Amino acid sequence: MNLKRYLPILQWAPAYRRDQATSDLVAALIVTVMLIPQSLAYALLAGLPAQVGLYASILPLVIYAVFGTSRTLSVGPVAVASLMTAAALAPLAEAGSPEYLAGAVLLAVMSGLMLTVMGIMRLGFLANFLSHPVISGFITASGIVIAASQLKHLFGVQASGHNLLEIGRSLVMSLPDTNLPTVLIGLGALGFLVWSRRYLKPLLKRFGVPARPADIVTKTAPILAVVVTTLLAWLLQLDAAGVRLVGEVPSGLPSLTLPSLDSGLWSQLAVSALLISVVGFVESVSVGQTLAAKKRQRIDPDQELIGLGTANLGAGLSGGMPVTGGFSRSVVNFDAGAETPAAGAYTAVGIALATLFLTPAIAWLPQATLAATIIVAVATLIDLPALARTFRYSRTDFGAMLATILLTLMHSVEAGIIAGVTLSIGLFLYRTSRPHSAVVGRVPGTEHFRNVLRHNVELCPKVTFLRVDESLYFANARFLEETVMDLVTRQPELTDLVLVCPAVNLIDASALESLEAINDRLRDAGVSLHFSEIKGPVMDRLKGTELLAHLDGRIFLSTYEAWQALTGRVAAAA
Amino acid sequence: MNLKRYLPILQWAPAYRRDQATSDLVAALIVTVMLIPQSLAYALLAGLPAQVGLYASILPLVIYAVFGTSRTLSVGPVAVASLMTAAALAPLAEAGSPEYLAGAVLLAVMSGLMLTVMGIMRLGFLANFLSHPVISGFITASGIVIAASQLKHLFGVQASGHNLLEIGRSLVMSLPDTNLPTVLIGLGALGFLVWSRRYLKPLLKRFGVPARPADIVTKTAPILAVVVTTLLAWLLQLDAAGVRLVGEVPSGLPSLTLPSLDSGLWSQLAVSALLISVVGFVESVSVGQTLAAKKRQRIDPDQELIGLGTANLGAGLSGGMPVTGGFSRSVVNFDAGAETPAAGAYTAVGIALATLFLTPAIAWLPQATLAATIIVAVATLIDLPALARTFRYSRTDFGAMLATILLTLMHSVEAGIIAGVTLSIGLFLYRTSRPHSAVVGRVPGTEHFRNVLRHNVELCPKVTFLRVDESLYFANARFLEETVMDLVTRQPELTDLVLVCPAVNLIDASALESLEAINDRLRDAGVSLHFSEIKGPVMDRLKGTELLAHLDGRIFLSTYEAWQALTGRVAAAA
Repeated sequence: MNLKRYLPILQWAPAYRRDQATSDLVAALIVTVMLIPQSLAYALLAGLPAQVGLYASILPLVIYAVFGTSRTLSVGPVAVASLMTAAALAPLAEAGSPEYLAGAVLLAVMSGLMLTVMGIMRLGFLANFLSHPVISGFITASGIVIAASQLKHLFGVQASGHNLLEIGRSLVMSLPDTNLPTVLIGLGALGFLVWSRRYLKPLLKRFGVPARPADIVTKTAPILAVVVTTLLAWLLQLDAAGVRLVGEVPSGLPSLTLPSLDSGLWSQLAVSALLISVVGFVESVSVGQTLAAKKRQRIDPDQELIGLGTANLGAGLSGGMPVTGGFSRSVVNFDAGAETPAAGAYTAVGIALATLFLTPAIAWLPQATLAATIIVAVATLIDLPALARTFRYSRTDFGAMLATILLTLMHSVEAGIIAGVTLSIGLFLYRTSRPHSAVVGRVPGTEHFRNVLRHNVELCPKVTFLRVDESLYFANARFLEETVMDLVTRQPELTDLVLVCPAVNLIDASALESLEAINDRLRDAGVSLHFSEIKGPVMDRLKGTELLAHLDGRIFLSTYEAWQALTGRVAAAA
Repeated sequence: MNLKRYLPILQWAPAYRRDQATSDLVAALIVTVMLIPQSLAYALLAGLPAQVGLYASILPLVIYAVFGTSRTLSVGPVAVASLMTAAALAPLAEAGSPEYLAGAVLLAVMSGLMLTVMGIMRLGFLANFLSHPVISGFITASGIVIAASQLKHLFGVQASGHNLLEIGRSLVMSLPDTNLPTVLIGLGALGFLVWSRRYLKPLLKRFGVPARPADIVTKTAPILAVVVTTLLAWLLQLDAAGVRLVGEVPSGLPSLTLPSLDSGLWSQLAVSALLISVVGFVESVSVGQTLAAKKRQRIDPDQELIGLGTANLGAGLSGGMPVTGGFSRSVVNFDAGAETPAAGAYTAVGIALATLFLTPAIAWLPQATLAATIIVAVATLIDLPALARTFRYSRTDFGAMLATILLTLMHSVEAGIIAGVTLSIGLFLYRTSRPHSAVVGRVPGTEHFRNVLRHNVELCPKVTFLRVDESLYFANARFLEETVMDLVTRQPELTDLVLVCPAVNLIDASALESLEAINDRLRDAGVSLHFSEIKGPVMDRLKGTELLAHLDGRIFLSTYEAWQALTGRVAAAA
């Protein structure tokens, strides 16, 4: 049972059927065709040699097929993680240098270790603290930065930078060096891709191709652009005309790579590896859950951490770069009919064959073509309407989103995501530190008690009933102290305070101490503290504490009972 | 009105009466006597020249009287903040050097700025995230480290270190250099202080002194030890015998000191300044609230931030060290009858007089005497029973407490407090990420719905009612997605799911997107999503969102209405 949890392959492989294998093979073929240009492009985006992208699309896919719980997630290099890789490595070494490559390998290994450990420790919940507006803002901004960073390849110029300002300045400076043949290839490819995205599917449908195959063919259009421009570059020997090509790529499978053990490098890359891990995980799980739901399947987020973690370890050890589940590829995989993670393993075989036999052709592939495929791919990530939607719905969420976007665009991806997470958690902590509470009074003639601000209720000037609508823990313990002392200073005639606790599921040690302090302070102020409607489990824990031992007042089962006892006593004394 | 909020002095000064002045003057006299040795001792503990402690007990007290909201809080150098100051400065410069002193000044200024800004931005709630067990564990461990760090003065040896291991090793190495006269003075003072703490009060009472004055005299016993040992040192010229004395202290009031503007130094000290600020603030507020409650007064935590912040700015600009509200001094101030913050200003005058006239005497004060007063003072901070109490009450709180204590003792104060805060917030986030929810069924024959696990209720296999017992926000949005999809995969015959929301006070943008995703996924799985008992304000915000526009199911006012409509339809279809 437990073995099946940690090795999800055991859930489907023993009953693997021939018809499933056929579906998986078809899907794998289509995904392979889509993945080849993407792998090369994302390696380029990360500042790495093209083959690194291919390497990251072999072993990780096989490992994910063993440890992953999504049936259709397509693991491999993705745009945002590649951008984050570039941002993490830029301060350490020059793009393309051996140190830079070693850094990418280490990032994949560290990210793999972090994810795997988080999975084993069942820490998947940590990803919850990347709120939707933050992640959505981050991905939109990353998409913009990525698209901007590819413009240099379209113009055939040298430019650099990790935010819009740097990229823009650098581009403007270098525009005089624009290479015309590169621009023609780049804009040609871009035009074709944009056209195919919009018009190829309707065209195919008009020629009688059914909707789903038409959709899939449209998604694999980039390979056509790749083939045509590669052929052009080769036939016209465009490198002589100044068109930058991918260049010689070593042929053959990746070999075992050991990560650097330099502890300085580990600590320099730790934060980046964590961010890449968490962002990648959140995106993967969201894609995986969406696709799984369509077939009433489910994925296990903690096991997903292990699946993605081991996949990244595999990526690092085979000379690759950080990987995660890609959105568009996974959708294609699903639509093409993949039934089991075996489709991923077959895709790995396809990419392995590419590294063995296609590298001479890849050498002639213009970088401008890859840039065009990246730009078209990331355009789908940019979701500006989400900004307006969030603004309308919640100003606080919008604030966190906007901070994430602006910092990502203007400073760096890491600053953006860290600011977003810090802001969301800060706003969240702020909210929870002020729990909902209400002074309640008796609905006349009944045993019910309601908020005095919203209902016409009976009150007693000497006895106040304060209902607390949340569990009490350190985050709001002090707020309770303040609320209570506020009530007491505002009502000099007060003699009894009843805390009404029907919604209190937990009282932690801090809240317990606060309640003790409240009890002591109320006693000093001549007020007795009582409780009503304490839940059973909470009461069990309170037994034997100093709070109950020193409590000035009483514990009432119901608020009405407290009302009768206390207001009755007050009335008798009057 | 607003001016009174930011200048609490306007609340009491205009109506200041002669009898209040008399009470304040008496209290100030007693606190001054207590504060002189404490100021010197805590400066010593922080690795600073003795006069710095005095300087930090003049201007800050006057400023706090203007901006602070506690009537009786006694501001000045305190033990834990002094230890944290030493820990922060140790890596930067040698104790006693001009750079070290400049660091202390900068710490006070930064801490002052941080507290003031937090106060203006009303960020006092941030202090809530220092849970009681963490702060209690931290103070206990700090007390132990402080006491250990003073042993070298009792033995008259050189030793150093910022945790128990370092201090212990260093002490053992240097024990052969023990200076006998120092030991006699140190142990004599320590013995006297311990004796006076235990027996002086009963003795005074036996001689007819009433309880409160007896208590106050007991608390000022250290000044007697100071006077006697200073006289001894002067008469016997003990410096020649190797007894280390405070030494020459410049006479006169502090002069204006400008903080360093070295941005490197600012960033090196930022974390330390923040920790000193927050720990000091939490302690001050807790003392202030306890004392205020005794007179049915209240303090405003956000204004306290401004009070303590401006006091620290004053401390820095007058060549002092970080200050905060001290526990024992504030209690003495209160017990001695202080009625307004003017008592603090009078105390400042007392300390100013000491810097003008007592410095020649202070020069002869043995450091061993100060060490003895520190040890006795911090002994009251050490609260080991709290460990057992917390262990019995809550294992998670105990875990955070123990981690704080062990790291403070074995590594450093900063590591201890950071680990404690991180662990508490982590555990808190973990808890909130799994909100309480329950599948509910109908109590037969009624309109009530209860948890199926606890009550014998009616169910319908095709319609599930899931009650959510907390607000929905990003921290638990994913948990809800998982809970719902789990239900759906486990019940293949399910056609309708009703989310029962009586306890949902808020749905943030993340939760809204999760609900949209849930709606889409349920539709893909052939299940309709409905809601019941959505609160009015939540419903208002949901209007106009895509969730309602695309909702597959309906919104029911009551759960019973949903039950009738959905199970009735199912029954009709059967």
